[in-house]
Amino acid sequence: MSVGIVTEQSITLESGIKLDSGRILAPITLVYETYGTLNAMRSNAILVEHAWTGDAHLAGRRSAEESKPGWWDAIVGPGRLLDTDRYCIICSNVIGSCYGSTGPASINPKTGKRYNLSFPVITVRDMVRAQKTLVERLGIDRLLCVMGGSMGGMQALEWATQYPDSIASAVVLASTPRPSPQAIALNAVARWAIYNDPAWKKGEYRHNPKDGLALARGIGHITFLSDESMNAKFGRRFSAKDGLFDFFGQFEVERYLNYNGYNFVDRFDANSFLYLAKALDLYDVSWGCESMAEAFEPVTAPIQFFAFSSDWLYPPYQTEEMVDCLKGLGKPVEYHLITSAYGHDAFLLEAERFAPMVSRFIEQASGRGA
Amino acid sequence: MSVGIVTEQSITLESGIKLDSGRILAPITLVYETYGTLNAMRSNAILVEHAWTGDAHLAGRRSAEESKPGWWDAIVGPGRLLDTDRYCIICSNVIGSCYGSTGPASINPKTGKRYNLSFPVITVRDMVRAQKTLVERLGIDRLLCVMGGSMGGMQALEWATQYPDSIASAVVLASTPRPSPQAIALNAVARWAIYNDPAWKKGEYRHNPKDGLALARGIGHITFLSDESMNAKFGRRFSAKDGLFDFFGQFEVERYLNYNGYNFVDRFDANSFLYLAKALDLYDVSWGCESMAEAFEPVTAPIQFFAFSSDWLYPPYQTEEMVDCLKGLGKPVEYHLITSAYGHDAFLLEAERFAPMVSRFIEQASGRGA
Repeated sequence: MSVGIVTEQSITLESGIKLDSGRILAPITLVYETYGTLNAMRSNAILVEHAWTGDAHLAGRRSAEESKPGWWDAIVGPGRLLDTDRYCIICSNVIGSCYGSTGPASINPKTGKRYNLSFPVITVRDMVRAQKTLVERLGIDRLLCVMGGSMGGMQALEWATQYPDSIASAVVLASTPRPSPQAIALNAVARWAIYNDPAWKKGEYRHNPKDGLALARGIGHITFLSDESMNAKFGRRFSAKDGLFDFFGQFEVERYLNYNGYNFVDRFDANSFLYLAKALDLYDVSWGCESMAEAFEPVTAPIQFFAFSSDWLYPPYQTEEMVDCLKGLGKPVEYHLITSAYGHDAFLLEAERFAPMVSRFIEQASGRGA
Repeated sequence: MSVGIVTEQSITLESGIKLDSGRILAPITLVYETYGTLNAMRSNAILVEHAWTGDAHLAGRRSAEESKPGWWDAIVGPGRLLDTDRYCIICSNVIGSCYGSTGPASINPKTGKRYNLSFPVITVRDMVRAQKTLVERLGIDRLLCVMGGSMGGMQALEWATQYPDSIASAVVLASTPRPSPQAIALNAVARWAIYNDPAWKKGEYRHNPKDGLALARGIGHITFLSDESMNAKFGRRFSAKDGLFDFFGQFEVERYLNYNGYNFVDRFDANSFLYLAKALDLYDVSWGCESMAEAFEPVTAPIQFFAFSSDWLYPPYQTEEMVDCLKGLGKPVEYHLITSAYGHDAFLLEAERFAPMVSRFIEQASGRGA
């Protein structure tokens, strides 16, 4: 069942947070949604973390008119995997984003103008710092579970390593201990596409630099799919509208990238895209430690990992490095390699493949009297 | 030993050729270099095909001042793999390119202006059509060998299938029967980067659109390297000049793409880049046939294939599809999978890994009295 009509909420943290860079970001507004009811023990809260261009709108509709439900609606609701009859689900928009939480498109109260590039560089750890404050304000000492895919998985890892006493379990999907130089390179050319757009104006645009941002998103889509899924979805089909020998004739895959690129321009801020891309690239679970083992030493909560066979952005071997490290430390860890052709996007597209295992894992955490 | 000082030569085919598109391209100039001497039987000629942004300058120096020798100098010369004491080596710049052969930057004699986008869309088969005429003009009925990597490999495949009686052997390195949709997608975003550059002016620029072309080349470099080689070469090192929290701070891999991208702008024409990218994407060894088997049916010459384990642009499985097909047809074929971390670029960087096998293969062809 759907959770029905939901209402976006927000809090403002006047004193803000001290960032990894040493700068203070204040005030901070965080937008979030909740589904289900917090129990008397406040022990049934699950925090779901969104990926790069996601938002707090996880499930249900914000109004009866909204055409699409939240981004993980399929698994959140009464009787669904994240059963809102049993759990209180929270999803919050990360700082740096453009969906209500403080980011480069927000007004800097000191100047009365948008931050744009005066916004500080933030890290995934900073995102989680802000969330931790939100969770405390909601009166929750300990989350039953924190879960997410891709950048959401990085956030779950930060909870597990930075706030080990504040979570009873974590689920990490399609993530990485640190993006490879190849993944960084792909983000680098996406950034470059935006920088090249004269409409970007070093971040001081009034209207999104659409050509640059669309191209940046097009590059992103290549990394979200896989060789296999592109073969299945497009093959080498040439656009039926175009002649094979037209200079501007397009393959179907090319039209797809264009179409999705330009669609994105209406929904995402270019500067936010750049700040979050940077946070992704800088991400390293071992940040500030000598080794991954040192980083994982504080972990107490069981962590369930999922990697997807055709994910070439954050390939399975990167998840396996974490699993092996945690096992070596004797930490409770569970790992599932899901055979999928869907590439990185599998964590969004193939929920039915991992949902039952996640469900069971959270139940176990709950049973331990989290 | 080096071949020493070499001279670029050219011929002009006044009547041109009829292209796959049905259009006539005339006249056609082809620039080429030769090394070594054609024997009395005219049976010792080897045609080397260059890749996307290569040229006819395979070996030696065009003047004593030239700082770098030709692009495959390491293997061409007296006593080298392609031994100019024994063989007459020919390399010709493909049509569509910008290194002397007719391409979009050439003057259209009908208008007195550069072709730019009025240049016809060409295919790899068209490139080889033009070369065939050159080879005939040189008085050669049958090449001892035709060899090349990447787009050069595609050309070798065209010789083997379209002109089976005109070659005694073929060597195909790091190539593909047809680029995958993923490879097309990566070229598509490179094209898009050029289209986005206002300096491109739909091809009517006076000066190369440098930001767009540099970005396009940067995207290309990602595909030429591999996850492994990027790890070895750059890791996640951050530029020593930049602060980690500088908005414009770069990872080393990012600087590399920028540096190489902007270097490329001085040496390659943006429209040529686009036309050749299109030829690559359109390439299909089975073009005009019902199946790969039908396409390979006319093959008589032995073909030696090399694929490189970390080449994700044209992955080994694509070469293996051709090898299996040829074997199924009972054609003489040889296949070597080279374990290499260098990705697609391995065919240029690791010549010592395959050179001895190529040498032996050509010797065998020669021994059969080609």
